Amino acid sequence: MKNCLENVRKNTPLVHNITNYVTVNDVANALLACGGSPIMSDDQKDVEDITSICGGLSINIGTLNQNTIPSMFLAGKQANKLGHKVLLDPVGAGASALRTNTALDLLKEVKFDVIRGNISEIKTLAYGSGSTKGVDADMADAVTEDTLDAAVKFVKELSGKMGCIIAVTGAIDLVSDSETCYVIRNGRKEMGRITGTGCQLSAVMTAYLVANPDHMLQAAAASVCAMGLAGEIGWSHMCPQDGNATYRNRIIDAIYNMDGETLEKGAKYEVR
Amino acid sequence: MKNCLENVRKNTPLVHNITNYVTVNDVANALLACGGSPIMSDDQKDVEDITSICGGLSINIGTLNQNTIPSMFLAGKQANKLGHKVLLDPVGAGASALRTNTALDLLKEVKFDVIRGNISEIKTLAYGSGSTKGVDADMADAVTEDTLDAAVKFVKELSGKMGCIIAVTGAIDLVSDSETCYVIRNGRKEMGRITGTGCQLSAVMTAYLVANPDHMLQAAAASVCAMGLAGEIGWSHMCPQDGNATYRNRIIDAIYNMDGETLEKGAKYEVR
Amino acid sequence: MKNCLENVRKNTPLVHNITNYVTVNDVANALLACGGSPIMSDDQKDVEDITSICGGLSINIGTLNQNTIPSMFLAGKQANKLGHKVLLDPVGAGASALRTNTALDLLKEVKFDVIRGNISEIKTLAYGSGSTKGVDADMADAVTEDTLDAAVKFVKELSGKMGCIIAVTGAIDLVSDSETCYVIRNGRKEMGRITGTGCQLSAVMTAYLVANPDHMLQAAAASVCAMGLAGEIGWSHMCPQDGNATYRNRIIDAIYNMDGETLEKGAKYEVR
Repeated sequence: MKNCLENVRKNTPLVHNITNYVTVNDVANALLACGGSPIMSDDQKDVEDITSICGGLSINIGTLNQNTIPSMFLAGKQANKLGHKVLLDPVGAGASALRTNTALDLLKEVKFDVIRGNISEIKTLAYGSGSTKGVDADMADAVTEDTLDAAVKFVKELSGKMGCIIAVTGAIDLVSDSETCYVIRNGRKEMGRITGTGCQLSAVMTAYLVANPDHMLQAAAASVCAMGLAGEIGWSHMCPQDGNATYRNRIIDAIYNMDGETLEKGAKYEVR
Repeated sequence: MKNCLENVRKNTPLVHNITNYVTVNDVANALLACGGSPIMSDDQKDVEDITSICGGLSINIGTLNQNTIPSMFLAGKQANKLGHKVLLDPVGAGASALRTNTALDLLKEVKFDVIRGNISEIKTLAYGSGSTKGVDADMADAVTEDTLDAAVKFVKELSGKMGCIIAVTGAIDLVSDSETCYVIRNGRKEMGRITGTGCQLSAVMTAYLVANPDHMLQAAAASVCAMGLAGEIGWSHMCPQDGNATYRNRIIDAIYNMDGETLEKGAKYEVR
Repeated sequence: MKNCLENVRKNTPLVHNITNYVTVNDVANALLACGGSPIMSDDQKDVEDITSICGGLSINIGTLNQNTIPSMFLAGKQANKLGHKVLLDPVGAGASALRTNTALDLLKEVKFDVIRGNISEIKTLAYGSGSTKGVDADMADAVTEDTLDAAVKFVKELSGKMGCIIAVTGAIDLVSDSETCYVIRNGRKEMGRITGTGCQLSAVMTAYLVANPDHMLQAAAASVCAMGLAGEIGWSHMCPQDGNATYRNRIIDAIYNMDGETLEKGAKYEVR
């Protein structure tokens, strides 16, 4: 954990983000806070050049449109060609046909190192659009202590099937390849009352992947712990009159001030 | 007032926003702060699906473009078909032909429950583009104690003509159907030095409409009082070195922490 | 310096921004903080109307796309026709062919009063795309005390060649026409850990130009001093747990609270 964080600070990984306009400013500041460097670019004629000078690419479909969807494919393929780390955040997969299909098509044409989403988005990708609702009867819609065993099995199998790391974030976070699953219990429920902590995590995770190319599973897990821990530290600095706007700032501030020791001590995870 | 706020917190209304990229992050956080839940989507192939899973739609034309304008019509019609609450925030109507015409066309093809804007935007919609400057000779360009009687008459008549609630916000806020007008004196002038308090209000108001379908006028008025009161409470927590950036956060924080009692006691309104 | 700031507060210059969606909210709040007023509009059918009612236009290519690029030309030409102040912020020129070429094409078709960027962007514009790497062998990639003489010579010459004021910001800032160069040493290196301080400066600078049409070089320099000084004042209000998110707010707050006296005393510059 410690090393993963320190490698980000040492290497200042440049991350290309094709992301939504809702949370993009927080994404940029979170990347800067963790020690990375952000570039945003989503035009079809711009993305190949931009992704070429970066170390990683984070694709977030939160406000996808007809102009940016082709850019996601172009950038993804170019990043693949150059051996860059590539992450998919399938925001809203399952909520519309366009989102579901775009995510599924991206999975066909681009090789991702990590897919990071909530359980509902990840299940949509696992089962395809509109299909086989029965399949997920054995797994509830949230990862809780009660459903944990089934959830761990699910993400390991999905990782094997997809050929990439799967990161499911929620009350309990799971980060898994086909053999190993990090079960992470950092974070606070109040983080759900802020827009964009998931988007921020996707970008920060990409920076961790770039800076730790030989330990990607660990790096992805470390970024999840760091984000959750930042949520805990940020909360500890809240005053009675503070709400979600201030909390948003406090979390990014906590990422900014976090060192390897703090992460090492504060990370709450088990490996299954 | 109290009930209106509490119904939002109880029902967590999901609001689809087609909105501008300037204030979108604050809009999302304000919606979360009041107890609602935001989704942003503006692509023509995405908006019908997304609006279908929501309870309300807020259309804000602040940074309209050739891609998002058709989405506004598609989403509006779909929301109408499903009986969802729909609000129009005609940002900049009167400042450009595109904005004025888009707002007027939307009014023709989509049934809105509320139009919320400043007096200049609302007058543009009332009198159409480029026409009849003389008509508004009897009403000044700001709602003040001096022009209040004429303004109340104007919004009541416009509400009757338009067939929807009209909310005019400014130094004094008016929220009216054809028979009743709430005259609201919450808020602070410093809110005008922050970008986006109007956009936030439009989204929050939509959440209030969704959660209080049988008392829409009251709900719209309650949301205006809540936003203005948040401006007052937020200001009371300002330190000497604070400015508009911190004030922005303090207002959203105040929305987050506001309960029904606080709104009931703090709301300053009369009904005419 | 003092007069330049006070003229902004007195005149509330309206600035049209065609800018990126990453930092646009901070740009709007920074403009409001300094005493200006922001309008954002980037659609081809909207920009000519909008720019016509403003006093200045700030074009920032940070997230340029096929829809907004033509808008930059249309707005720029319209602003030229009306004699408005026009500023170019060539974000990422040199990082992609699209950015470099768009900036160079804009320079051909639009008359700019100021180009503001970092040294790498400005050098790209000076030497054109892909050309003559050898030319800048005599000037390092950062403006430091060691390279200052060469840098001052470079910006003066470039200003003469381009026919506009050149503002290069970095550890040391240079603001120059062909004869005079302000060398400015305000600011803090931690500003680089926040996204958007450059974008904010471009918009604020445009407000300063509009409010001080007869002293543009001074006005541009004053805005650079003001932004840097805000970075210093904002930093002085930071607590140990604060990070870049809070710093972002503190800087805008400092712009909001700055008066002419404070700027006069705090500005650190020499004229060469």
